[in-house]
Amino acid sequence: MRKLLIVPAFLGSALLAAAQSQPQLNLMPMPASVQAGTGQLPISASFSVSESGYHDAALDREVKSFVTQLSRQTGIPFRPKPGAAPTLTIHAGHHRDAVQKLGEDESYELAVTASSAALNAPNPIGVLHGLATFLQLVQITPNGFAVPAVTIRDQPRFPWRGLLIDVSRHFIPLDVLKRNLDGMAAVKMNVLHWHLSDDQGFRVESKVYPKLQRAGSEGMYYTQAEIRDFIAYAHDRGIRVVPEFDIPGHSRSWFLGYPSLASGPGPYTLEEGALAPAMDPTRETTYQFLEKFIAEMAKVFPDAYFHIGGDEVDGKQWDANPKIQAFIRAHHMKNNQDLQAYFNRRLQKILAGNHKEMVGWDEILHPDLPKTIVVQSWRGQESLAAAARQGYRGLLSYGYYLDLIWPAARHYAVDPMAMTTTTTATDAAANLSPEEKSRILGGEACMWAEWITPENIDSHIWPRNAVIAERLWSPQEVKDVDSMYTRLNAVSLDLEWLGLTHRSARMHMLHRIAGTADISALRVLADVVEPVKDYTRPDDLKGPIDFHAPLNHLIDAVYPESDVARQFAHLVQTFVQSGGKDQAAEAEIRRWLSTWRDNDARLHPLLEQSSLLQEDVALSADLSALGAAGLQALDYLDKSQPAPDAWKTQQLAVIEQAKKPKAELLMMVAAPVEQLIQAVGAPQE
Amino acid sequence: MRKLLIVPAFLGSALLAAAQSQPQLNLMPMPASVQAGTGQLPISASFSVSESGYHDAALDREVKSFVTQLSRQTGIPFRPKPGAAPTLTIHAGHHRDAVQKLGEDESYELAVTASSAALNAPNPIGVLHGLATFLQLVQITPNGFAVPAVTIRDQPRFPWRGLLIDVSRHFIPLDVLKRNLDGMAAVKMNVLHWHLSDDQGFRVESKVYPKLQRAGSEGMYYTQAEIRDFIAYAHDRGIRVVPEFDIPGHSRSWFLGYPSLASGPGPYTLEEGALAPAMDPTRETTYQFLEKFIAEMAKVFPDAYFHIGGDEVDGKQWDANPKIQAFIRAHHMKNNQDLQAYFNRRLQKILAGNHKEMVGWDEILHPDLPKTIVVQSWRGQESLAAAARQGYRGLLSYGYYLDLIWPAARHYAVDPMAMTTTTTATDAAANLSPEEKSRILGGEACMWAEWITPENIDSHIWPRNAVIAERLWSPQEVKDVDSMYTRLNAVSLDLEWLGLTHRSARMHMLHRIAGTADISALRVLADVVEPVKDYTRPDDLKGPIDFHAPLNHLIDAVYPESDVARQFAHLVQTFVQSGGKDQAAEAEIRRWLSTWRDNDARLHPLLEQSSLLQEDVALSADLSALGAAGLQALDYLDKSQPAPDAWKTQQLAVIEQAKKPKAELLMMVAAPVEQLIQAVGAPQE
Repeated sequence: MRKLLIVPAFLGSALLAAAQSQPQLNLMPMPASVQAGTGQLPISASFSVSESGYHDAALDREVKSFVTQLSRQTGIPFRPKPGAAPTLTIHAGHHRDAVQKLGEDESYELAVTASSAALNAPNPIGVLHGLATFLQLVQITPNGFAVPAVTIRDQPRFPWRGLLIDVSRHFIPLDVLKRNLDGMAAVKMNVLHWHLSDDQGFRVESKVYPKLQRAGSEGMYYTQAEIRDFIAYAHDRGIRVVPEFDIPGHSRSWFLGYPSLASGPGPYTLEEGALAPAMDPTRETTYQFLEKFIAEMAKVFPDAYFHIGGDEVDGKQWDANPKIQAFIRAHHMKNNQDLQAYFNRRLQKILAGNHKEMVGWDEILHPDLPKTIVVQSWRGQESLAAAARQGYRGLLSYGYYLDLIWPAARHYAVDPMAMTTTTTATDAAANLSPEEKSRILGGEACMWAEWITPENIDSHIWPRNAVIAERLWSPQEVKDVDSMYTRLNAVSLDLEWLGLTHRSARMHMLHRIAGTADISALRVLADVVEPVKDYTRPDDLKGPIDFHAPLNHLIDAVYPESDVARQFAHLVQTFVQSGGKDQAAEAEIRRWLSTWRDNDARLHPLLEQSSLLQEDVALSADLSALGAAGLQALDYLDKSQPAPDAWKTQQLAVIEQAKKPKAELLMMVAAPVEQLIQAVGAPQE
Repeated sequence: MRKLLIVPAFLGSALLAAAQSQPQLNLMPMPASVQAGTGQLPISASFSVSESGYHDAALDREVKSFVTQLSRQTGIPFRPKPGAAPTLTIHAGHHRDAVQKLGEDESYELAVTASSAALNAPNPIGVLHGLATFLQLVQITPNGFAVPAVTIRDQPRFPWRGLLIDVSRHFIPLDVLKRNLDGMAAVKMNVLHWHLSDDQGFRVESKVYPKLQRAGSEGMYYTQAEIRDFIAYAHDRGIRVVPEFDIPGHSRSWFLGYPSLASGPGPYTLEEGALAPAMDPTRETTYQFLEKFIAEMAKVFPDAYFHIGGDEVDGKQWDANPKIQAFIRAHHMKNNQDLQAYFNRRLQKILAGNHKEMVGWDEILHPDLPKTIVVQSWRGQESLAAAARQGYRGLLSYGYYLDLIWPAARHYAVDPMAMTTTTTATDAAANLSPEEKSRILGGEACMWAEWITPENIDSHIWPRNAVIAERLWSPQEVKDVDSMYTRLNAVSLDLEWLGLTHRSARMHMLHRIAGTADISALRVLADVVEPVKDYTRPDDLKGPIDFHAPLNHLIDAVYPESDVARQFAHLVQTFVQSGGKDQAAEAEIRRWLSTWRDNDARLHPLLEQSSLLQEDVALSADLSALGAAGLQALDYLDKSQPAPDAWKTQQLAVIEQAKKPKAELLMMVAAPVEQLIQAVGAPQE
């Protein structure tokens, strides 16, 4: 059975009204219900807030930080008039728990009129979300900063909306993580999944087993005091922190300090070797170690959920160990998978003893495990639906891997309940009962850090993460891609006011690469390329990756998605569809093409003087060739005449050349220029 | 007697060698001696540092922070090879004092060869300066990051090289001040003059008189613990912190908590009134108060110097108080100036009792005061020389006021020892004996904060402050303006790696003003305007200034100096001097002019949608008119024919219109376009 998707009437009309009668509401995630009002509420120096109902020190702090943020966004230092009525009245119904629970009420209602605003929520978490919405509503107008009159009733679609950050492959300092928490709160994400240990580094201080961080972190780890402070910071923003210690695979960093945990002989280093080591699940000492370790960590991380990884166990070390193979036979197990299930059962009991629910990747799913566990799927929605049918709760991460460098629209199309989100999609969850559906808790974006540093992590998470946040918060029917990109651009700017550097860091990196103050020509090139997609960087394909290599090349600096290329493709589309008659579009296209044609000459002095740019020589030449080819195509189109075959063949060779990745970068304007060339062939009537 | 300026041979030849045989050395301040070597030292992943000789925890910290900074600049995570010889060897001769003294040895010697580098200094302060030089030497080359082989022997010309930051008019948080300390250290400035109290706010916690900060700061002040931490941070960077409490004028903020200190009846508020209040110097209770206050502050601020302001005492409140006038007569004083001298003598004794040397502005100079005081001159070099003749030590700030929004070249031309620094300048210090000359300790840039916020303070200090730093550090003969701008551009980029936002903050502010992601047209306009100079903002002229007004307009966002305009003027100069024959220059000029001509149409949607841009409509129209006029002039020049008189009259009217300030902004490309138009008149032979 296929499902016909209908946008609820209230939502459609509100968006329509917003588009017609007033500036677009640049909200992301789009709220469940938006009702446009009349007029707008000015945000002036006298802006003030009052809290009624329940409040505590944490909420007061957040309200204060909201006012600071509003002041930063507008540049207005607020000075409320004594005795005047507050501009915004906040009411929280009751308190929230010291430890945030999965599934807490996150709803809020925000009513803005031309004279005041009221924010109501059952508890402080809803207030936080409402304040985030308010900040997104503020815009500059011909009459100053203002919030349009609107009534918003909002609550999330899924209770678990997370972002995984891998701090093992490359260590990410806490200040960088904190600004990313601020960003998550701004788009109403509520779980930071902290991938704290992996082969390349163990990032947490253990007092019980201090050699974990001493030997396994190269000095880069978080102390327990820092972690407590960080978790409090997250809690203030309505974000749970779920730790992940990835075992029994992905655990080489543990073995530097405690080699006896491993299934094979050492010595171990953090450098990638031929063999991916794994813990030895057959020795009781392993469980004794984990028992003490988890007891310690259960106190450091108060969240009820505890992630044990469990993915990609390379069986080779187990295969090579005769004792382990003997254990498998002795316990009548069929294979390594059964051995891992045995390990997970033991682990789950330890976690339960510490009042923790176990979370793990797809591979942990095994009939022997209790239904209390949560499965995080990197395999897909079908796998998730299957688990739900068996009674397991699940999270989707398939389709949300930010390190695959997909465009925002591709992540946006991935829905936890459906295989794809085209209107004719097979609905993976269609045959699930309501109870089974409720087991699909939400999803998590994943920022794996093979190619990530503190410098470029923001631009790899943002703004794309905001569309995953919308997918997990907003009604399933909110899926218009053009609207998404319009709103995403606006929200992306807001996010930089929080201190995120997803836009600004690129400028610094380009300056470093060029070694000069004038980087305009380099920016022209950087604006139209994207890193290669999926795992196709040469080191991804061949391995091993050198995790200490400098990430200071053009690929590390550019945005994962080229706005310029997307907009240019749209212009070309418009122009071609107009039959070559849209002169405004043509003028804009010519402006771009001329800039590109002339850019190689302008860039050459930089290409020659910087070792970091020498790999980009061919890329720059391609861009100029595309500019020239596109301009010639336009000349033919202007004259409404077909071009000689030889010309076309030659130009398509230019396109083909430009489409080949160079310096691990893709030339994103090759396709639209190809469209122009192809348009020449068809006679213009 | 006029002084013939000769660039020392070693310096000239070193610069020449640098220009010829290798990339320019982008050093600022230029060292006393630079000797180019052969080859370059690669900066690769194996870069390492070793310390020999004296070192302590503070120096170790700074060396570590140097390595972090080098890693940030290059994007290379360093991994020294165990056992390998260090790339850079540091040797400090002996320890430094816990409190940095005026006139300590700041010299260092840095020798870089193709295989290693050695930094030697008598003490850790010289090491800090040498490390700052090393960071500036690093550049990207066709063969990777490298430092050119060079031998530098360096020491400062003046022992007091300061920056005044006013935190009273607008409060500046400590994180912003700290990054400015980092910037100061990078250009070898060694005094932060902290203007901590003024009419608009009292910014220090007093435990003895807590109503000072409670009533006088609107909650914005530094605690004593924060100040101690801040001073330690400065000390680590070789920077002394000299506090200024401005009395007896500029002291309204004191009177909110302690009205009995004032010369007239209250009540007092921080808002500017008709009368500038002053302390009552005739009451013994005033001195009892100051005695306790200074004793407290003398402990908080360990530096041997203590600034008491003393400037611009408005005598009206003293005139209006019969008791004060009676006191003047009873003590046989001639006027208010004598009364202030009496106050200063009393104050100086209190300071001496606390082992502090008194510093104050020009007005404190009075024969009754001992020769131990230091006079800071906002009046000029003649005043400084005169004081030196009388035996007083002095500092120049005239010509170094960053809030006057002068171009860097104008500050650069101001020398503490000479009226101007054109080669034919009257040398104010020429008739001074060596001993008298030695009393001129140096100077201070001043960042008064009438129009400054934490958001735009960096761009008002940097990069211009670097040229004042050079004037005070480098040999007097280093004065080539073209070289200065080349080096300034490079250093400006380096400074942003320290966290300064003098370049990047503008982008955020322009986004706020425009309310959109695409600000390219607004940037074109922002690139060619500068704020009005000196004190000619309407509120400066008329007053009172509203210190709570939002500073979020275009004038607050743009750079104080337009690089684009300077470079465009240079292009026009080159083109006109070539008799219109320099085709490369013409092409570049045409590119700019076309961009400007078309910009108004592109900017209009933004001008209409943002209240903050409505004042800039005429400015944008001017720029387009200039673009069109300049292109017409080029067309005439290309045809080598004079233009009709009517055309020229009309175009010069466009220029005249464009030269009028609008929205408190100056159109900096009007003059070079005028030059093009004027060039048309002269027949092109």
